[in-house]
Amino acid sequence: MRVLAIDPGYDRFGVAVLEHGAERETLLHSGCVLTDKQANLPDRLQVVGEAVEELIATHQPDTLAIETLFFNKNQKTALGVAQVRGICIYLAKHAGCQVVELSPQEIKIAVTGYGKSDKRAVIDMVCRLLPDAPTDALDDEYDAIAVGITTLAHHR
Amino acid sequence: MRVLAIDPGYDRFGVAVLEHGAERETLLHSGCVLTDKQANLPDRLQVVGEAVEELIATHQPDTLAIETLFFNKNQKTALGVAQVRGICIYLAKHAGCQVVELSPQEIKIAVTGYGKSDKRAVIDMVCRLLPDAPTDALDDEYDAIAVGITTLAHHR
Repeated sequence: MRVLAIDPGYDRFGVAVLEHGAERETLLHSGCVLTDKQANLPDRLQVVGEAVEELIATHQPDTLAIETLFFNKNQKTALGVAQVRGICIYLAKHAGCQVVELSPQEIKIAVTGYGKSDKRAVIDMVCRLLPDAPTDALDDEYDAIAVGITTLAHHR
Repeated sequence: MRVLAIDPGYDRFGVAVLEHGAERETLLHSGCVLTDKQANLPDRLQVVGEAVEELIATHQPDTLAIETLFFNKNQKTALGVAQVRGICIYLAKHAGCQVVELSPQEIKIAVTGYGKSDKRAVIDMVCRLLPDAPTDALDDEYDAIAVGITTLAHHR
C-alpha cells in the first residue's frame, strides 16, 4: 500500500506519501503547499489541485487518505476546505485510487494511543515513529503524515 | 464567449453550454447528470467530475459560470455541494477557463427582471428566451441554463 495523505486547506495544504517498509512505515515525501493569500479562491484551488495531480503522477499512490469533513465554527472556512477536499477526492478516484476517510479521533488513537491528544503530542509521536520525518515543519505537514501513519496502521 | 454553466450537486447536477449567437443566445447543450443514490460520496464525485471533464473536452468553453456558495439549512448537503463545486472550478481553471460566480439574485434579475422571482417564473423565462430549451427538463437543468443566460447578459 502506498498512500497519499492529505490535510486539506486552501491556505496551507499538508501532504505526505508513505508506504509499508520492511520494518516500519517509510515516508517517501512530505510537504506543505502554501497559496497566495491575495489570490482569489478559484486561483488557490487551481494551485492546490495541480499540486495533487503532480503528487499522484510522481508517486503513483494506490490510496488517498483524508480526514472526514466536519463543521468547525467558521462556516466560510469549512466551505473552502470542502471545495479543496472535493478536488483531492476527485483527482484520486479518477487516477484509480481508493479513498480512505479518517476521523480526527481515529488519527489520534492510531498515532498516540489516546483519542484526545493535543497537537503537540501528535507531532512528537510522528517524529518518533518516523525518524526521517522533518523536525521543523508546519503543523499541516505533520497532520498529513499522521493521516498516512493511521491509514497504514489500519491496513496492517 | 462560450460558457459552461453549472448547477452543482452530487445527486442531480445541472449543466448547460451557451454562446452568443447572431441575434440571441444559443444553447449548445443542456442536461442533468444523475448519480446513484446508493453510491458513496467519492464515487458520486467521480461521476460528476468525469462528466465535467467530458463537457470541457467536447465544448471547449472559455468560461465556467456557477452560483456563489451559500449556506442552506442542511449543513451536510452544503458540504457535499461545496465538494462538487471545488471539482468544477478546478477542472475549469486547469483547462484555462475563467470562472464567473453569480448570486441567486443576480440570476433572477437577469432572467426575469425581478430578484425575488420563484422557480417557476425563472423556468418560464428560460423557455421564452431560448426557444430550443427543453420543455420538460429537471429544475437543475433549467437552473444551469439560467446561470448561462445571466453570464452572457453580463458580458454583452
